Amino acid sequence: MVLDRINQANDIKYLNEAQLEELPGEIRQFLIEHISKTGGHLASNLGVVELTMALHLVLNFPEDKLIWDVGHQSYTHKILTGRKREFEHLRQLDGISGFPKRSESDCDAFDTGHSSTSISAGLGYARARDLLGEDYHVVSVIGDGALTGGPAFEALNNAAELQTNMIIVLNDNKMSISENVGGLSQHLASLRTAEAYQEFKSGVHNSLERLPYGERVVRRIRKTKSSLKQLLIPGMIFENMGITYLGPVDGHNLMDLVRILREAKKVNGAVVVHVQTEKGRGYQPAEEHPDRFHGTGPFDIPSGQPLVKKEKPNYTDVFSTVITKIAAKDDRVVAITAAMADGTGLKRFRAEYPARFFDVGIAEGHAVTFAAGLAAAGMHPVFAVYSSFLQRGFDQIVHDICMQNLSVVFAVDRAGLVGADGETHQGVFDLSYLGMIPNMMVLAPKNKWELADMLRFAFRQEGPVALRYPRGTAYDGLKEHRAPIVYGQSEWIFEERQIAIFAVGNMMEEALKVHELLHERGYDCSLINARFVKPLDYDALRKAASGHLLVVTMEENILRGGFGYAAAAFLSEVDETVKVLHFGIDDQFVQHGTVSQLHVRIGLDAASMTDKIIETYQKL
Amino acid sequence: MVLDRINQANDIKYLNEAQLEELPGEIRQFLIEHISKTGGHLASNLGVVELTMALHLVLNFPEDKLIWDVGHQSYTHKILTGRKREFEHLRQLDGISGFPKRSESDCDAFDTGHSSTSISAGLGYARARDLLGEDYHVVSVIGDGALTGGPAFEALNNAAELQTNMIIVLNDNKMSISENVGGLSQHLASLRTAEAYQEFKSGVHNSLERLPYGERVVRRIRKTKSSLKQLLIPGMIFENMGITYLGPVDGHNLMDLVRILREAKKVNGAVVVHVQTEKGRGYQPAEEHPDRFHGTGPFDIPSGQPLVKKEKPNYTDVFSTVITKIAAKDDRVVAITAAMADGTGLKRFRAEYPARFFDVGIAEGHAVTFAAGLAAAGMHPVFAVYSSFLQRGFDQIVHDICMQNLSVVFAVDRAGLVGADGETHQGVFDLSYLGMIPNMMVLAPKNKWELADMLRFAFRQEGPVALRYPRGTAYDGLKEHRAPIVYGQSEWIFEERQIAIFAVGNMMEEALKVHELLHERGYDCSLINARFVKPLDYDALRKAASGHLLVVTMEENILRGGFGYAAAAFLSEVDETVKVLHFGIDDQFVQHGTVSQLHVRIGLDAASMTDKIIETYQKL
Repeated sequence: MVLDRINQANDIKYLNEAQLEELPGEIRQFLIEHISKTGGHLASNLGVVELTMALHLVLNFPEDKLIWDVGHQSYTHKILTGRKREFEHLRQLDGISGFPKRSESDCDAFDTGHSSTSISAGLGYARARDLLGEDYHVVSVIGDGALTGGPAFEALNNAAELQTNMIIVLNDNKMSISENVGGLSQHLASLRTAEAYQEFKSGVHNSLERLPYGERVVRRIRKTKSSLKQLLIPGMIFENMGITYLGPVDGHNLMDLVRILREAKKVNGAVVVHVQTEKGRGYQPAEEHPDRFHGTGPFDIPSGQPLVKKEKPNYTDVFSTVITKIAAKDDRVVAITAAMADGTGLKRFRAEYPARFFDVGIAEGHAVTFAAGLAAAGMHPVFAVYSSFLQRGFDQIVHDICMQNLSVVFAVDRAGLVGADGETHQGVFDLSYLGMIPNMMVLAPKNKWELADMLRFAFRQEGPVALRYPRGTAYDGLKEHRAPIVYGQSEWIFEERQIAIFAVGNMMEEALKVHELLHERGYDCSLINARFVKPLDYDALRKAASGHLLVVTMEENILRGGFGYAAAAFLSEVDETVKVLHFGIDDQFVQHGTVSQLHVRIGLDAASMTDKIIETYQKL
Repeated sequence: MVLDRINQANDIKYLNEAQLEELPGEIRQFLIEHISKTGGHLASNLGVVELTMALHLVLNFPEDKLIWDVGHQSYTHKILTGRKREFEHLRQLDGISGFPKRSESDCDAFDTGHSSTSISAGLGYARARDLLGEDYHVVSVIGDGALTGGPAFEALNNAAELQTNMIIVLNDNKMSISENVGGLSQHLASLRTAEAYQEFKSGVHNSLERLPYGERVVRRIRKTKSSLKQLLIPGMIFENMGITYLGPVDGHNLMDLVRILREAKKVNGAVVVHVQTEKGRGYQPAEEHPDRFHGTGPFDIPSGQPLVKKEKPNYTDVFSTVITKIAAKDDRVVAITAAMADGTGLKRFRAEYPARFFDVGIAEGHAVTFAAGLAAAGMHPVFAVYSSFLQRGFDQIVHDICMQNLSVVFAVDRAGLVGADGETHQGVFDLSYLGMIPNMMVLAPKNKWELADMLRFAFRQEGPVALRYPRGTAYDGLKEHRAPIVYGQSEWIFEERQIAIFAVGNMMEEALKVHELLHERGYDCSLINARFVKPLDYDALRKAASGHLLVVTMEENILRGGFGYAAAAFLSEVDETVKVLHFGIDDQFVQHGTVSQLHVRIGLDAASMTDKIIETYQKL
C-alpha cells in the first residue's frame, strides 16, 4: 500500500510517479471503508482527492496555510497530515472532527464549518504574512456553492483591492450541497465550456490573419488589454474585479493540477484557480446520488444503502408534511431555503408548488430580507433553515423582519445539539439571538404533534414567528397531551408540589426521566412544557413560584439570553421568592459526539440533573 | 415656488417642462435650509434630487414600489410624497424619520437603514407581485458603496436566477460614506469611462470595415453574442451574471434619466440602470466635503460651518487617540473598518499606520473573518464598528473568532441609544448578542478615562474582547475613580446599604443622579460600576445581595440577554434571596429623538427610575 508511506505532512513528496498514480485510488478506498462505518461527508471528499494531493505536492506544511471553505472536504488533507489512524473515531466524542481544527494539527490553518469564510481568512493570513515579513503561501479552497455566499464576494472584492499574494482554488463541482443556483453559477457554467472561447478566439484570429491588414487589427485588439481579456479569457467576472483567473483545469488530473498550482504560486496578487471536480468520484452510488452521500450515516459499500434503517420520522419529515398541507390551503404561503431543500424537508414543497418555492443559494442574509420583501408584498413566507446557519441572517431578522413586524415564519431546524457535526453546527444560540428581538415570537415543540400544531399556529399569527426543533427522530411520547396552542401559554404536564420543572422543546424527554427519578427518590415534581420561549408565560411562572420551593428550567441552548435567565429575571422581580436552577449550556462550545454523550459531558442528562436538583433542594 | 404645487404623491406629474427645470433648485434650497436647522443627511440627498424626480415621473405611487437602500437619501422622495411640511421635525421625537418608514407613508415600500438590503427586498416584492398576478413596477435604488455588501451580491445572484422584472438603480457617486474600496469599485470606475469602450468599438469596427472581408468578421463577432457583449458593453459584471445593464447615464440630467428609466421598465428580467451622481450637488461646501455633510448637525449655510461647536471630546475621539498610541508600541496591532474610517475614529490610525489599516468596504461579515485570519496569523486586530452594524457579522463572531478564541478587539461604537438616526441605528442589542458567545469578554466604560484603560486592558488579553461605548460626548465625571481594570471585577463607587445599583457603562451618569435623588428622599444606595458585562463579577453580586435588600441593574440595552437578566439568574441560584429590579429596554424598538427624550419615553431617566426603585423597595 502506498498509503502506508503517508504518516505525516509532506510524506507525499517522497512518492514516485507510479506511487502517485496509485494513491488516489487507495485514498478513495480508505475514505469509503471508513465513512461506511463511522458516517461522515463522503461525496465532497471523494471529489477533491487529486486536488488535495496536488496542493500537498506544491505546498509545504505547516509553513504554508491551506484553508478549506466549509471544511467537510478536508478528509484527504487529514490523511496526508498524519491523522490517518484517527479515522476510526471520526466525528466521535473526543475523536477527530469532520472539519479542520487548529487544535488537531498545525497543518489546519483555520477552523471552518460554515460557508464562504475561507477567502476572508486567507486574506487575513496573507496580509499578516506581508506585515510580519514572513514568506509562505496562502491557499483558500472554496466550492462553487460557497462562492455564492455574500461574505465570499465581500472578500473577493477586498482581495482585489489589497493586491496581496494569495491563491483561491475554486472547486467547481457544478453543485453545492443541492443544485447550485443563481447568476454566478450560470457564469461558471459558461466557463465550463471554455473550449467555445478558445474556438471563437482562434476563429476570429484566423479570419483576421487571413485578411490583408488582419495582423494590425489583432495587434490593435491586443493593445486594448482589458477588452482583449474580456474577449478571450474566461473568468471575466474575476478579471473584471482585478483578480487573475487561471483555468479551468481537470480536477482529477494530478499533473495538470500541480502545473497550474505552480503557475498560481508565481502570480502577483490574488489568483483564482478554477478546478473542475466531480462529487462522489470513484464510488458509483455517490457519483449517482451525490446529495445522498453529502453527509451520510454508516452504509453498505456494495449497494450504497444505509445500514441503519430509519424507523420513525424525524422533525424535518414532520415539517415537510405539514408545511405542504398548509401551502395547499393558502396560496400566500411560499417557502425559502438557502441551498438546503433536502436537508430542511422542502423538497416535497418544491415538487408540489415549484413557483412558490425559492432556493436562493448559500445566502442566508439575502434569504431573510427576500422573505421580508415577500411578506411586505402580501405573501406569507417560511424560511426553513438550520439554527447555526440562520446566525448569518441575524441582522436581517432584526432590521428587515422584526422592525417592520412582518409575518415570516422561521422553521429553525437542527436547533439544539446536532451531534457528529460538532461545534460549528450546534444550534445552541437561537433561543438567545431570536428571543432578544422585539416582535419575535419563539416556540419549541415537545413532540411531533406539537410541531405540527405550532406550525399551523405560526401561520395564524401576525408578525414573525420562530419555531425551533432539533435534528433527529421526532419524539412521539406524550401523545395524549395535545392541548391547543394558545398565545403565550405553557402546558402543564404534571401538577405536583416541591419542585417545578419548565422544559423547553426536546428537553421534555430528559425532563420526563428526571421526573421519574425524582419520584423514585421521594420528591414531588410538577412538569411544565414551556412551549413559548418568547413571550414567557408569566402566569405559569408565578404559579410555579408560589406553589413550589424550587423552579428548574431546562433548555438545549446557551444559558445566557435563553429561557431560564429570562424566567429567573422575571421571578426576581415578582413578589414570591423562589430559587431558580438553570440547565442549559454554560458558556462553552460543544464538540462532536452523540447527543446523549454530549448531554452527559455537559450535565444535561437526566441523572446529573436529578442529582443537582436534589442537592439544591436539600439546601433550601 | 414650484414646490408649492407638490403636496402629495404624483403631483410632480402635472408640472410643465419649465417647472420641472425649476424644481431641483428649489428642492435643494429646501433641503439645505431645513437640514441646516434640524441636522440630517445632506450630501447624499443633494445627489439624488433629479434621480428621485425622474423616478416619480416614471412610476406611480403608491402602486409602484420604490426601495431605498440604506434610506438616508430618501428626503426628496419624502418631499414628493406629501411630507414636505414635516421636515421641521425631521429626526425629532415623534417627527418624521430620516429613513423610509412604511408607518409614515404608503409610498414607502420598505423600511431601510442598514446597507445592501434593497435588492433582496425588491426581489421579494417583484416575486410576490408575479405570484399574486398583480401589475406594478419594483425599483431598488442602491449606491455603489452598498453594492459591495455581500447581501447585495447574494440578491443580484438570485435576481439573475429568478428572471422576474425589477429595476435596480445603481446610484454611483464614486464613493460610499467614505471613499469606496475594492474590486467592484475598480470595475465601476472602468465603466465610468464608457467612452473608451465606445471609441474602441468604433475603432475596431472601422478598422474591420475598411478591410476587404471586414464586414464578415464583424458579423462573426456579432454572432458570438456573449463575447460581443463582453467586448462592447460596459457592465460586463452584471451581464455576466445574466442581468441586463443600461447606462451609465448622467444623474443630473432629468430627461436622460426619464428616458433610461422608461427603457428599463420595458426590460424583461432584472435590469441595472447605472446612474452617475455627485454627492452634495448644488451646495458648494457639501460638494467639497461630502464626508462632512454625510450626516450633519445644524450648520451655517453661507460658510457650511457647524452651529454647535464641539467643546468636549466624544468617545470616538478618545478611542482614536488611544488606539493610535497602542499601535505605536505594538507592531502587531492592525485596525479594520467597514467603510467608516471617519465615523469610527480610525482616520488618525490610517494616517499614521497606513499599511496596518484596512477599510474593507461595507462588508462587516468579511471584516470579522478577515480579523480572524489576521489574528490566527499573529496580528492583534481591532475592528472598530457601530454596534448596530456589527449585527451583520454575528455569525462570524461566533464561528470565526470566538470558537477559535482568537485575540481580536471589537471597538463597538454607537452602542446604546444613538438619538436622531432612530430605530435602525440604536445599538441596543450588543450586550446580548455578544454576551451570549463563549470566550467573548464584554466591557463597557463609565467615562472617558475608563475607555482608555479598558482599551489597553483589551489588548493585554488573550481571546476576543468587545468594548462598547456610546455615541456623543465622553463623560468626564468620576475622574477620581480610576482603579486599574482587573479581569472580571466591577468597581464600587459608593458603598452604602439598602439598595445596590449596578450601572453598565454610560448608565453611570443616570445612576449618579438616581443615587442623589434616593439620598434626597432618605434612602441609602450603593453604586457599582459593572465594568464587565461578561464575565459577571459574581463576588460583587453576592456582596450586593447579602448587604442590600434590593439590587438594581441599569443598561442601555435590550433587557433579554443583557447584564441584568444574567445577574438575576445568578442571584436566583445563590443562597441569599434578594429582589432584582432591571432597567433597560423592554422588548421594543426605540424610535428617533434625543437620547434624554428617549430615556424619558422608555423609563430610563433618573426620575422615573428613582420612583420605581422606591416603589419596589417600599413593597419589600
